[in-house]
Amino acid sequence: MIISMKLHATRGEIDAVCERIRDFGYKVHSIEGEERVVIGVVGTGDVTTCLESLEAMPQVENAVRISAPYKFVSREFRPGKSVIRVNGTDIGGDEFVMMAGPCSVESEKQILETAYAVARLGAKFLRGGAFKPRTSPYDFQGLEEAGLKLLRKAKQETGLGVITEVMSDRDVPMVAEYADILQIGARNMQNFALLKTLGKAGKPVMLKRGLSSTIKELLMSAEYVVAHGNPNVILCERGIRTFETATRNTCDIAAVAVLNELSHLPVILDPSHATGKRSLVPPLCRAGVAIGADGLIVECHPNPEKAMSDGAQSLSLQQFANMMNELQPYIALWKQARVHEAVVA
Amino acid sequence: MIISMKLHATRGEIDAVCERIRDFGYKVHSIEGEERVVIGVVGTGDVTTCLESLEAMPQVENAVRISAPYKFVSREFRPGKSVIRVNGTDIGGDEFVMMAGPCSVESEKQILETAYAVARLGAKFLRGGAFKPRTSPYDFQGLEEAGLKLLRKAKQETGLGVITEVMSDRDVPMVAEYADILQIGARNMQNFALLKTLGKAGKPVMLKRGLSSTIKELLMSAEYVVAHGNPNVILCERGIRTFETATRNTCDIAAVAVLNELSHLPVILDPSHATGKRSLVPPLCRAGVAIGADGLIVECHPNPEKAMSDGAQSLSLQQFANMMNELQPYIALWKQARVHEAVVA
Amino acid sequence: MIISMKLHATRGEIDAVCERIRDFGYKVHSIEGEERVVIGVVGTGDVTTCLESLEAMPQVENAVRISAPYKFVSREFRPGKSVIRVNGTDIGGDEFVMMAGPCSVESEKQILETAYAVARLGAKFLRGGAFKPRTSPYDFQGLEEAGLKLLRKAKQETGLGVITEVMSDRDVPMVAEYADILQIGARNMQNFALLKTLGKAGKPVMLKRGLSSTIKELLMSAEYVVAHGNPNVILCERGIRTFETATRNTCDIAAVAVLNELSHLPVILDPSHATGKRSLVPPLCRAGVAIGADGLIVECHPNPEKAMSDGAQSLSLQQFANMMNELQPYIALWKQARVHEAVVA
Amino acid sequence: MIISMKLHATRGEIDAVCERIRDFGYKVHSIEGEERVVIGVVGTGDVTTCLESLEAMPQVENAVRISAPYKFVSREFRPGKSVIRVNGTDIGGDEFVMMAGPCSVESEKQILETAYAVARLGAKFLRGGAFKPRTSPYDFQGLEEAGLKLLRKAKQETGLGVITEVMSDRDVPMVAEYADILQIGARNMQNFALLKTLGKAGKPVMLKRGLSSTIKELLMSAEYVVAHGNPNVILCERGIRTFETATRNTCDIAAVAVLNELSHLPVILDPSHATGKRSLVPPLCRAGVAIGADGLIVECHPNPEKAMSDGAQSLSLQQFANMMNELQPYIALWKQARVHEAVVA
Repeated sequence: MIISMKLHATRGEIDAVCERIRDFGYKVHSIEGEERVVIGVVGTGDVTTCLESLEAMPQVENAVRISAPYKFVSREFRPGKSVIRVNGTDIGGDEFVMMAGPCSVESEKQILETAYAVARLGAKFLRGGAFKPRTSPYDFQGLEEAGLKLLRKAKQETGLGVITEVMSDRDVPMVAEYADILQIGARNMQNFALLKTLGKAGKPVMLKRGLSSTIKELLMSAEYVVAHGNPNVILCERGIRTFETATRNTCDIAAVAVLNELSHLPVILDPSHATGKRSLVPPLCRAGVAIGADGLIVECHPNPEKAMSDGAQSLSLQQFANMMNELQPYIALWKQARVHEAVVA
Repeated sequence: MIISMKLHATRGEIDAVCERIRDFGYKVHSIEGEERVVIGVVGTGDVTTCLESLEAMPQVENAVRISAPYKFVSREFRPGKSVIRVNGTDIGGDEFVMMAGPCSVESEKQILETAYAVARLGAKFLRGGAFKPRTSPYDFQGLEEAGLKLLRKAKQETGLGVITEVMSDRDVPMVAEYADILQIGARNMQNFALLKTLGKAGKPVMLKRGLSSTIKELLMSAEYVVAHGNPNVILCERGIRTFETATRNTCDIAAVAVLNELSHLPVILDPSHATGKRSLVPPLCRAGVAIGADGLIVECHPNPEKAMSDGAQSLSLQQFANMMNELQPYIALWKQARVHEAVVA
Repeated sequence: MIISMKLHATRGEIDAVCERIRDFGYKVHSIEGEERVVIGVVGTGDVTTCLESLEAMPQVENAVRISAPYKFVSREFRPGKSVIRVNGTDIGGDEFVMMAGPCSVESEKQILETAYAVARLGAKFLRGGAFKPRTSPYDFQGLEEAGLKLLRKAKQETGLGVITEVMSDRDVPMVAEYADILQIGARNMQNFALLKTLGKAGKPVMLKRGLSSTIKELLMSAEYVVAHGNPNVILCERGIRTFETATRNTCDIAAVAVLNELSHLPVILDPSHATGKRSLVPPLCRAGVAIGADGLIVECHPNPEKAMSDGAQSLSLQQFANMMNELQPYIALWKQARVHEAVVA
Repeated sequence: MIISMKLHATRGEIDAVCERIRDFGYKVHSIEGEERVVIGVVGTGDVTTCLESLEAMPQVENAVRISAPYKFVSREFRPGKSVIRVNGTDIGGDEFVMMAGPCSVESEKQILETAYAVARLGAKFLRGGAFKPRTSPYDFQGLEEAGLKLLRKAKQETGLGVITEVMSDRDVPMVAEYADILQIGARNMQNFALLKTLGKAGKPVMLKRGLSSTIKELLMSAEYVVAHGNPNVILCERGIRTFETATRNTCDIAAVAVLNELSHLPVILDPSHATGKRSLVPPLCRAGVAIGADGLIVECHPNPEKAMSDGAQSLSLQQFANMMNELQPYIALWKQARVHEAVVA
């Protein structure tokens, strides 16, 4: 920690701060600047409580933490990438992982038709919501367990892994029975009760970045899951909320590269929610492959115009096929780069 | 709904849209503009699904909802203010309601000392977290049920009502046993599983606006609670997340006035989280009274420098006393205006 | 400055950083933490260049400036408030200053009718744009010099001071001939060519905060004007751009209090642009007085429905009169507080 | 335009709105909804003034423009891409255009060394600031005309085109004498005096998106330049300001794809300012090529640690060489796609 004192702090006030720091078991390094005193804090202890206590003292201008507040999820903790093996597929490894499917599970016909199509086109995971977080209480809330059963059926028929959302700590055991990966939606990224429960879920978790969550907060939420016992966390950039309204959200694509620098966890890009518009999904998928995401999660539907949710951002199965075709040379470059990194490291 | 077609939409494409609209049971009013066709949709039906379906059609430029997506919480539904009576105090009525207390319940001594002080100074509710949403899994997470018991004790001794946070649908029955008002934190404003459970909680709810939630989304979340059976919802503006870092959040004070126009629900301002800085709390309290909030919720602590959380934004009990004193003439003006409104209405 | 090295920085890399710091004439205080080395930099020199140079070095995690980057505009430079006397009125002193008028100067009749009305109701300055910054090249761009002449005529008839916008360094001499205060619009807050020219304009300047400018950047832009020779700068909070669309901008009202802490310059609130909606202007004016702004700038028009710009946020003259009446007791409290501060200081 | 009336609008109020619309020369199509009346406005006229007038009327809920507010820059105006030929290079055509160079022109040695290096590696334009927009008045403001002369010398020696910033309408003639492309910085994107002057500058213009400017506003600013006589405008996405602080700005990469849909103007991506961090520039360049930008503008420097500005985001010349090498296969895919599009169209 580095503590900056206010310009006119007296000797007594500075001493009080130093004493408080020592109370927490830290050592003090005081630097007398031209204008003000800055205090370096060295040692190990309860950083947050100490920081908050110092910030509350008069004549403290500000108190800044130097060490990263997360450790398990940090690259400093594990230098290489984490590879999470799910349903026979390595996520975070040498394989570019495509996840695809409808926004909501609507019917057996819809989900099976989609599953067969995306499996044939190279996807490894089927997405589809059985519990739907909807802004309005009057909108379709999902088929719930009936939807989970349909996802299981699709898995049995196609071999695809299943990724689906869980919205409450109460539902974790049930969803974990059906799903290969538990998806946490953007609005629940800081639902700490849910995060703690996921630590014991026994299934990998994909954590979507909150609409206004910083990259650091995303990593802290991942740290919650890992610290509570579950190391298999996948991160997902899905766009953040900004002033721009031309797209549903603003895709913070650089976050993929930043997360790759800061963390060893796999990173998936969701271009469907990031843009909210079908025509923008293929170009953003190309960008996601090129920047080095470990995979993509894409919404598609046999008949987007009849979808019960998110039709405007869903590709038809034909559009998905075209896109997969177009992506192949980019994925080939991605694999070359992955192999090259592995050799260098 | 109003549907704008793209510039080069053909007659066939326009007809397909009109047919889809009629499939949903609506009537169609087509307007041929100089440049493009715009279609007015009239009737009642499943607005969201229809809207999403139309947005997914080719040659639809955009589809805009005209009617408000909420009804129970709207001023159009109930023209006057809702008054919610809790522990003998009217919230939303002719009384300006002060809620105060520490960020976290830490000990019996701390909470009782605070409760006696704020009760004496005119507060009607004691705030204090027993379940704490913390960004880091390594930070103090609250005393949980032991904290709730201390809050009950403080209520018994001082007569103050108790407002405290509930973080999971699982915990609602327990917290509802101790609290007079269930507080929903900003990060849970769109925790829909929790919102649904609150509909049956049997206690009033204070819903804090999410960090990046629009005013409309706040009202939709309130609508969830009401639609699930609980009409006693209080709204709380506590600052939103923006690019500005001089304050912890950006207090959207105009939201208080906007909410008063759009909704009949009471509106409370939280200047402590809105600013994150003790010295800014008193000026923001004055502004909150002047703009017409129904009350304030303010953090204070017997010894902010030793607080386990949010010390930097907590007033000392002496500072709280000074502020209450300073606020009196503003509250007197507030009451005049309230009475005047009642007479006019 | 405080420089944090990366976790695995070698001794050689740390030494290289220290050497670079000394090259800039600073002294080095190295602190060996548990995890990493942090370097305190003490002395005076070219802070920005040094900081940027260090940030560009490998193994530097980050480099943070401790001292404020502005000085003339800082409270640390001048502890009391600056009082700027314009056309017989003290701005920043014991008088609450109301500025009012239409968005655009449209005609002699319009500007005179407005000027007489607002003068009678206690305003001291007439606002009105002769040069209009419009998003579209096809919108009304203002009457230019003809508009300035009408403002001068209104001043001659009513005694009001004139505040009007200047949009280009080229126009500064002309506008300075007619105006008492030169207004810089939000979109020009970082038009540095213009800011430099204002240093020599010989007239006070009101600097509106940019749509996405931080408080610190607003102060830095004020510092430009002062450093180039003009100490008479008035700051104006007019709302920032956020994700919220219920209001035209988001009024960062706490910025008024923050600016009062950081700077001695007067601070004016513009509730018209902050909200974009007529009905929100009076409540926001009350909040602005209560939080301690030095004045308000409000749009009003003899016939808002016929205004050539900003009609939706303009008060009619009758509405302005009602609002002025309603504000009186708040202004009385404001004066008490000002006098009290002066006695205490 | 579509006008929504408030719920309780009377017949008389609706008629008054219709009459106002007809006063502007438009035709009225009234739609009686279940809840409220919506009025379609058809015809051609002064849209903005009419819209603003209607918004200012009582009982108008809102007024929305349907037609795009720009025309010259719209894809609807010119369906294919605009190709702008500068110094023998086609921008917006079948060539992927690399622009590179230092943030600031610092010395003859620096600019020539950079120019030779980037020319050899395939760049077609040399960037370098002679007029520098700096937040602080105390920071290096650029070499001004001396810097322009050095850029001209670099052009004479290497054949590279020159792109450099102009900050004031006053400086346009001088900068236009030396530069092949006039760059408008983010902070000047809505400096309308400057935009108007650029209409007569006789040189192509690259317009950087403002920090908090929407895509629509960027297009409106481009429309200013075109409407004032200069059709040769290049758009540049350089990151927008959000709450995220891990990167200097947030790269809105989807904006590249959105601009390609809405406009025929060429679009360049600036990954250096978008991220502010050297290590993120190569991944973002790959993403920029993959998403279909027409080119990139990248900061590089012979010795970033000694750069007078932006060292932390500047690549060394060796790093730039490595990146160019790595980009080749992506650029090859880009060319295939361009040729394919041309064949399809």
